Amino acid sequence: MKIDLNSDLGEGYGRWKVADDDSLLDVISSANIACGFHAGDPSIMDHTVRMAIERGVGIGAHPGFPDLSGFGRRFMQLSPKEMEATLAYQIGALQGVASRYGARVTHVSYHAAFGNAINADDALAERLAKVIATMDRNLIFFSMADQPVGRAAEKAGLRVLPIFLADRAYDVKGNLVPRGREGAVIHDHTQLRDRVRRFLDSGTITTIEGETRRIEASSILVHSDTPGSVELARVIRSEIENGGGEIVPAHVLLG
Amino acid sequence: MKIDLNSDLGEGYGRWKVADDDSLLDVISSANIACGFHAGDPSIMDHTVRMAIERGVGIGAHPGFPDLSGFGRRFMQLSPKEMEATLAYQIGALQGVASRYGARVTHVSYHAAFGNAINADDALAERLAKVIATMDRNLIFFSMADQPVGRAAEKAGLRVLPIFLADRAYDVKGNLVPRGREGAVIHDHTQLRDRVRRFLDSGTITTIEGETRRIEASSILVHSDTPGSVELARVIRSEIENGGGEIVPAHVLLG
Amino acid sequence: MKIDLNSDLGEGYGRWKVADDDSLLDVISSANIACGFHAGDPSIMDHTVRMAIERGVGIGAHPGFPDLSGFGRRFMQLSPKEMEATLAYQIGALQGVASRYGARVTHVSYHAAFGNAINADDALAERLAKVIATMDRNLIFFSMADQPVGRAAEKAGLRVLPIFLADRAYDVKGNLVPRGREGAVIHDHTQLRDRVRRFLDSGTITTIEGETRRIEASSILVHSDTPGSVELARVIRSEIENGGGEIVPAHVLLG
Amino acid sequence: MKIDLNSDLGEGYGRWKVADDDSLLDVISSANIACGFHAGDPSIMDHTVRMAIERGVGIGAHPGFPDLSGFGRRFMQLSPKEMEATLAYQIGALQGVASRYGARVTHVSYHAAFGNAINADDALAERLAKVIATMDRNLIFFSMADQPVGRAAEKAGLRVLPIFLADRAYDVKGNLVPRGREGAVIHDHTQLRDRVRRFLDSGTITTIEGETRRIEASSILVHSDTPGSVELARVIRSEIENGGGEIVPAHVLLG
Repeated sequence: MKIDLNSDLGEGYGRWKVADDDSLLDVISSANIACGFHAGDPSIMDHTVRMAIERGVGIGAHPGFPDLSGFGRRFMQLSPKEMEATLAYQIGALQGVASRYGARVTHVSYHAAFGNAINADDALAERLAKVIATMDRNLIFFSMADQPVGRAAEKAGLRVLPIFLADRAYDVKGNLVPRGREGAVIHDHTQLRDRVRRFLDSGTITTIEGETRRIEASSILVHSDTPGSVELARVIRSEIENGGGEIVPAHVLLG
Repeated sequence: MKIDLNSDLGEGYGRWKVADDDSLLDVISSANIACGFHAGDPSIMDHTVRMAIERGVGIGAHPGFPDLSGFGRRFMQLSPKEMEATLAYQIGALQGVASRYGARVTHVSYHAAFGNAINADDALAERLAKVIATMDRNLIFFSMADQPVGRAAEKAGLRVLPIFLADRAYDVKGNLVPRGREGAVIHDHTQLRDRVRRFLDSGTITTIEGETRRIEASSILVHSDTPGSVELARVIRSEIENGGGEIVPAHVLLG
Repeated sequence: MKIDLNSDLGEGYGRWKVADDDSLLDVISSANIACGFHAGDPSIMDHTVRMAIERGVGIGAHPGFPDLSGFGRRFMQLSPKEMEATLAYQIGALQGVASRYGARVTHVSYHAAFGNAINADDALAERLAKVIATMDRNLIFFSMADQPVGRAAEKAGLRVLPIFLADRAYDVKGNLVPRGREGAVIHDHTQLRDRVRRFLDSGTITTIEGETRRIEASSILVHSDTPGSVELARVIRSEIENGGGEIVPAHVLLG
Repeated sequence: MKIDLNSDLGEGYGRWKVADDDSLLDVISSANIACGFHAGDPSIMDHTVRMAIERGVGIGAHPGFPDLSGFGRRFMQLSPKEMEATLAYQIGALQGVASRYGARVTHVSYHAAFGNAINADDALAERLAKVIATMDRNLIFFSMADQPVGRAAEKAGLRVLPIFLADRAYDVKGNLVPRGREGAVIHDHTQLRDRVRRFLDSGTITTIEGETRRIEASSILVHSDTPGSVELARVIRSEIENGGGEIVPAHVLLG
C-alpha cells in the first residue's frame, strides 16, 4: 500500500517563518511551495526547493492571491483573465527556481482563498485547469475528491491526486467543517493516529455527525503551521509505515 | 544585412503605463519584458507576451531589483544567493506566462541597477550567468559589447548578443555617458537617424569627445519610455530597411 | 455663490503617473491624495502636498485597499478591524507628510472599492467614521449626498461635504449609472459645461431616464485620469467663475 | 535612579510574527514600533499601540527602508528627498494609528540599514532630524551616545535619549562589535545580568578588548527577536529593580 504525504511549505517571507520546514521535509513526500504572492520570496523558494530535491520530495506550486498582509486568506475580486495570468506567473516562478537545479515542478495545489474562489466557479475552474495543462500536461493536480477544481483538472487532461485532510473534521457530504466550529480541527495525537489508521485500513472516517463516510484519497495533507506540526507529521508517517504502508511522492505514485 | 531591434516593454504596473507597448511591438523584433519586481504584473506580462507572439517578436526576460517604488533604479544590497534566486524567479515567471501560450522565452536582459550591480562584480556576473545557463542553455544574453556580464555569459556557454544604444552618447572607452551629463541622451530624430545610418554603414559612432569609435552590435536598443519613442523606433526601423537591412529577432539572427 | 472643486490626485506610484497633477492643482480647490495603498508613494505624496500648499488647495486623504496591482478597484475581504487600522494608517501617513510642512489634512474621501465596501455596510461605515472623528474632529468627509458613508460621518460628528460628479450620469434615484452602461460617462465638453451651468443655476440635472432631479452638492468632482482632464477641469472652473461663482476649498467653505 | 527599557516591536507582517510582543510589553517601558515598510502592517501596529497604551508603555516610531523581503536590513540607495518623505510617512502612519486611541507617538528610533545609512551621512542626518522636529518638537530621539544621528537630532532641537545595547559587545571607541564577530552578541543570562548591574552601578562596561569604558545611556535596548528575549528582558528588569531602580518610559524620564 502506497500513499503520499503532502504539506504546504515555504510560507514564510523574508525573515519571517511559519513552520519548521526543514524538519517537515524529512517526513513528507510532496511539498506545496508558496510562490511569492501570499507568502514565499525567491530566497525561501530556492531554499525549500533545494531541501526538497535533496530528500526526494516532490516539488509542487502553491499559488495564492497577491496579498502578503492577508496571507492569501482574504477573497480578492480578480477577473478570470487576471486569475489566469496570476496562476501562470506563480507556477512559472517556481519552475524557474526548480530548473536552476535541474529539477521539475511535479504538482499544483491552490492556496486558501484563491482555491476557494476557483472552486466556487466551474467556468473559472476550467479556465485555470487549462492554463496548468497547457503549461505542463504532466503536472498533477492536488484536491479533495469530488470538488469542482478537481473535475475541471480532469477535464483538462490533468491527473488528479485526491487528498485527505487528516486533522480536519468532515461532514456527511464530505465537506470540511468550517474552522470556526467546535471540533473542526483535530489536535489530539491519539485521535489523529486512530483517524489515519482507520482511513488506511478501511478508507473511511467518522463525520462530525457521527456517521461513517468513505474518503477517497491517495495523499494525506499535514498542516505545517499548527503547533506541533512536525510531531503530528511523524505520528502520521509512523502510523502508515507501521501498517506496512510506503510513503512515496505523488509523481512516483501516479508515475 | 540582418539586425535585431529590441526594447524594454511591459514596464507598467496595474493601471500604470510607461510606454505605448502595443505600437512598439509593431516595430521591434525583440521585447525585454519586465518580470514583476521593478515593474510588470502578471496581467501586463500576459498581455505583452501575447502581443509579442502575434507579431513574431522575441520574448525576453528583463529582471530587476524588487523595488516597485524605485522602478529598479536604486541599488539594493542583495547577497549573491539572493541575486541568484531573484533572477531564477523572474525568468521562470515569464517562462510560465509564455508557456501557457506554447511560447518560449528567447533571451535575457538585465534591468537598470540590477544589471549595474552585476556588471560591477565579475564573480557575481559568473554566478548569475550560470543560473541562466542551467535554466535554459538556449537563452541569449543581451549586453553591450565588452562588458563583464557579457563575458560571464559567454563563459557560462550562453550566446551573447551585443547591443547598441542608439540614443545614448558613448565615450572613447565605449562606456555610456552618464544620463546627467549634457549630450548624454540624443533626442533629435535627424541626429539619431544619422547615427544609426553610420553605425549600419561602417559600424562606428562619434564619441562625446568627437572621436570615431567602433561599436560591435547585432541589435539596437530603442528606449520605450522617452517621449516620442514609437516615432523614434520607426525612424530607426525605416533607416535600417531603407538601407536594405532586415530586422529579425535575436533568436532568428543567432539561430 | 461659493463652491469647491475637488479631484483625486497623487495616484501614481514610483515613476508611474496617472494625471497631470501639477496642472490640475492650478484649477481645483481640494485634492484627495492617494495614501500609498492603492497608489501614491511617500515621494509622490510629499510632492503633491507641497504643490497643494503653495496653491492654497485643501489636502485630503484618499485611502484605499492595499492593492497596488488592482489600483484599489478590486474588492478585498478585510475584517472591520483591519478596515479601521487600514484607514487610520493611511490618514496618519498623509497627516505626517503634511505636518512636515506645517500643514494639516482637511478632509477625507474614500477610494473606489474601499468606499463601495464601506458604503454597503452601515455598521462598518459607522465604525470607520468614528475612527476619522477620533483622529481629528475637524476633518471634513466628502461623499455624494444621501449615502450611508455620509450619514455615518454625520452621526460621528463630522461635517459632510456633498459632492457632484459632473461627468457621470445619474439615475432617478440619485445613484451613479455604472461605468459600463452607454452614456454613463460624459466626455463632451459642451454637454459637460451645460450640465455644470444648470447645476449651478438650479441645483438640478437631467437623469439618464430624462427626468429632472435635484442634486445636493457643495463640491464638484473632476476626474483626474480621463484624457483631457485638465481641459475639463478648466471648462468647469470657467463656467463657475463666469457665472459669478467663487471656487474655495472645502475647509474654507465650511470653515 | 530611573531608567527606560526599550525594545523593537510590531516587527511581524500579516500572519508572521517575530517576537512575543505582548509579553515584552509587560516588561519594557518604551516600544519602537515598525511602521509598515520593513515590517508591521496596519493591524499589527494597531494591536501593538493598543497594548502599549494599556500598559503605559511609550509609543515610538521605528521607520525603515521599504523592503519587506529584506526586513530593512539591506541598504537601498534612496535620495535625501526620498528619505525625508519615507520618514515623514512612517512616523505619520504610526501617529495616525495612535491618535485613533487618543494617544501620541513619544519617540523615534531608526531601524537597521535605514539608520546606518543616515548615520553615515551628517548632512542627511540633519535633514531627517529637521523633518522629525517639524512634525513634532516633543518627539524624543533614541540613539547610542555620540552618534551623528543623535548630534543631528540635538541640533534640530530634539531631546535625545542615549541607549545602551546590553546584549551587544562594544569596542574601545564605543562602537558596536559587528554581529559576525565572535563575542559580538551576549547570550548568557548571568553575563548579561552582570553587565547590566555594572552599567547601573558605575556606568561602565568591559569592551571586547578587555578595557573599561564609560557608556552614557538612559535607556537599555532589549532585542525582541533573539530566542529567549522575554526571559532576557525580565532578567534586565529584575536586575534594575533589585538595585532600587525604577523603569519609566522615555517621555516620563525626560518629561
